[in-house]
Amino acid sequence: MSSIETSTALTPHFDANGLIAAVAQDHATGEVLMLAWMNAEALKLTLETGQATYWSRSRNKLWRKGEDSGHVQRVVEARIDCDQDAVLLRVEQTGAACHTGQRTCFYRVVGKDGVLAASS
Amino acid sequence: MSSIETSTALTPHFDANGLIAAVAQDHATGEVLMLAWMNAEALKLTLETGQATYWSRSRNKLWRKGEDSGHVQRVVEARIDCDQDAVLLRVEQTGAACHTGQRTCFYRVVGKDGVLAASS
Repeated sequence: MSSIETSTALTPHFDANGLIAAVAQDHATGEVLMLAWMNAEALKLTLETGQATYWSRSRNKLWRKGEDSGHVQRVVEARIDCDQDAVLLRVEQTGAACHTGQRTCFYRVVGKDGVLAASS
Repeated sequence: MSSIETSTALTPHFDANGLIAAVAQDHATGEVLMLAWMNAEALKLTLETGQATYWSRSRNKLWRKGEDSGHVQRVVEARIDCDQDAVLLRVEQTGAACHTGQRTCFYRVVGKDGVLAASS
């Protein structure tokens, strides 16, 4: 295995845009809530404050999850993957994770025919 | 809400490189196993065959998960997120999801001090 896979040092690999993908998962239920992006500052703030902070690609700014909606994410545990280019946050989610009001952003199931249906 | 959030048509939003992020989650345990990438062809094959197929950014080719290792992922359910730029696969994982031999790629917990520790 390469050193990045066994290292005990956090050396996140940001992409060409300076971002790393972050998956938020409900700590209690295991439900995957959303996928968002972090730059180095967002990751640092998330780890330091214990409040999930992302980089908004649409608004081009740091975005503390819930800063407007109150639907904050308290980070119970943060993990990094083998090649350190993806983050997993196990969170305590206040309210809905999705801006649509759904509990999770993944509220539609893809049928084999490409037709989407509400998840149960 | 915008139409992409309520539509029953799958209209995935691929990034500038033609890719969409895909999270694989163990259907039975809820464990998040890995984050990988799909191009349109990989997504199509995944939905058609029920076997998770990704796009390898390092090898620049389609990659049916487990084609070499035997550690295939049978897709129990595929989901798309609100703005259709991330996929969630709930899978039945044969063997280890991670090429390091770990069950999940997210086998290290990030401490506040940036020191990584094996997850329990």
